[in-house]
Amino acid sequence: MDRANRRQITGYSNPTVKFLKSLRDKKHRRREGRFLAEGLRLLTDARENGRVPEMLVMADKRDPHPLLDALIAAVDVAGGEIVETTPDILSKISGKDNPQAVAGVFAEFDTTLATLDRSAAPIWLVAQALRDPGNLGTMLRTGDAIGAGGLILIDDCADPFSVEAVRASMGAVFTQGLAQATWDEFLPWLRSGAGQLVAASLREAVPYRGAPYTAPCFVLVGNESRGLPDNYERASDLRVTMPMKGRADSLNAAVAAAVLGYEVLASLKG
Amino acid sequence: MDRANRRQITGYSNPTVKFLKSLRDKKHRRREGRFLAEGLRLLTDARENGRVPEMLVMADKRDPHPLLDALIAAVDVAGGEIVETTPDILSKISGKDNPQAVAGVFAEFDTTLATLDRSAAPIWLVAQALRDPGNLGTMLRTGDAIGAGGLILIDDCADPFSVEAVRASMGAVFTQGLAQATWDEFLPWLRSGAGQLVAASLREAVPYRGAPYTAPCFVLVGNESRGLPDNYERASDLRVTMPMKGRADSLNAAVAAAVLGYEVLASLKG
Repeated sequence: MDRANRRQITGYSNPTVKFLKSLRDKKHRRREGRFLAEGLRLLTDARENGRVPEMLVMADKRDPHPLLDALIAAVDVAGGEIVETTPDILSKISGKDNPQAVAGVFAEFDTTLATLDRSAAPIWLVAQALRDPGNLGTMLRTGDAIGAGGLILIDDCADPFSVEAVRASMGAVFTQGLAQATWDEFLPWLRSGAGQLVAASLREAVPYRGAPYTAPCFVLVGNESRGLPDNYERASDLRVTMPMKGRADSLNAAVAAAVLGYEVLASLKG
Repeated sequence: MDRANRRQITGYSNPTVKFLKSLRDKKHRRREGRFLAEGLRLLTDARENGRVPEMLVMADKRDPHPLLDALIAAVDVAGGEIVETTPDILSKISGKDNPQAVAGVFAEFDTTLATLDRSAAPIWLVAQALRDPGNLGTMLRTGDAIGAGGLILIDDCADPFSVEAVRASMGAVFTQGLAQATWDEFLPWLRSGAGQLVAASLREAVPYRGAPYTAPCFVLVGNESRGLPDNYERASDLRVTMPMKGRADSLNAAVAAAVLGYEVLASLKG
């Protein structure tokens, strides 16, 4: 460990520790254009998808692992920095009592609509004003499972680069496409090419099961407490509802996206 | 507001405030046998399901609402206590910056398997070692939506009476059946009557879509990171898998339960 790009940090007040801790805060992430991802599995997903951390932070006492060796090698090749520190400081950085033994700093991705290739996948998930980072991450994870192309975040959503969203995505933040746009940007983009917009609706709608889905299908779910604005639903090509047998009139947003997404997947397969 | 069961609290150090705050902690909930639920809608769900809080806590400056009047009347009839306090103190109690204007203290329910009537519903959700209270609450909410009888928590799960679980359930903690048991208690109970045990499996299994579900169907999902123990899967009547098109090999536990639960609902209907 005597290469130029390696450092050992043992002090809590080290500027790098402060920088890493600051990435738990959205304002600092925006300013730095960087975010934090934790855990060997997640970082391996990133690496295998061509995303190598600019900085890799590891506990100085850790179990050896071939995937960690591969990660270190990739960071070396990319000219990134490797930092070793104590488990205590890692815990301070991650804000968890039992931190992962490894974390990485990544440059935030370009999340403009132009980065998406709609022909690359038959299903896309679209969330409007999604407030919960856990729901956001879960939608990315579900998108990966159903073979979606990615997640499009409409209007004021939670931050996809927050530690909670990255964690809940289980690595899918690195493998799914990701875009952030206003409705007024999204709709013209959608209508500039092929694409069916399907709204999960609480209003006048057809049953989600057996509805006429076509690829590429954009599955749109609304805010956790308010659902979709009426004009968003009206602009959709298809409004579908799921049975509600109980007292409540809605599902958790990530659950609604998953149930609908799996239905679209089965429908498009034939 | 001069009846005997009404009190005004303005001090942070008031013992009632300390008691209410302590209910955010599992150890104190167990000791007191009480839990906290917040929000007019949630408390109304509880009331309409015959669950009236022992103590109702309200902000002293609040908007009038007929549902709040109904709640106050129900607490009065049941001989419960009504406490008025400041928004600041309510915020202290709930641990949120924007607390709901009303909260209630409930006695914890009996959650033994004997309280469940399996003939009351065609679907039951079963979670094993579910660690995340948000997932737990979401499963209760989903259970309500699919007309499930309730949620059975196997082995060491998150606390269904935690503020996070109650909140995520959106009131379904009051309307769904709820049981906590070890696997060694659950399996004999299940086999003592009718019931198909369906495991969401990552191993050898049939596709979840079109699988031969029969009522009452017990949908079993495993721990967030480890999935189900092998012997639990083998003891199940049916092992089903959902398509995994991406890099990951699993779904969020609450998502898996929902996708599978909606499939069972559709299958049993037709």
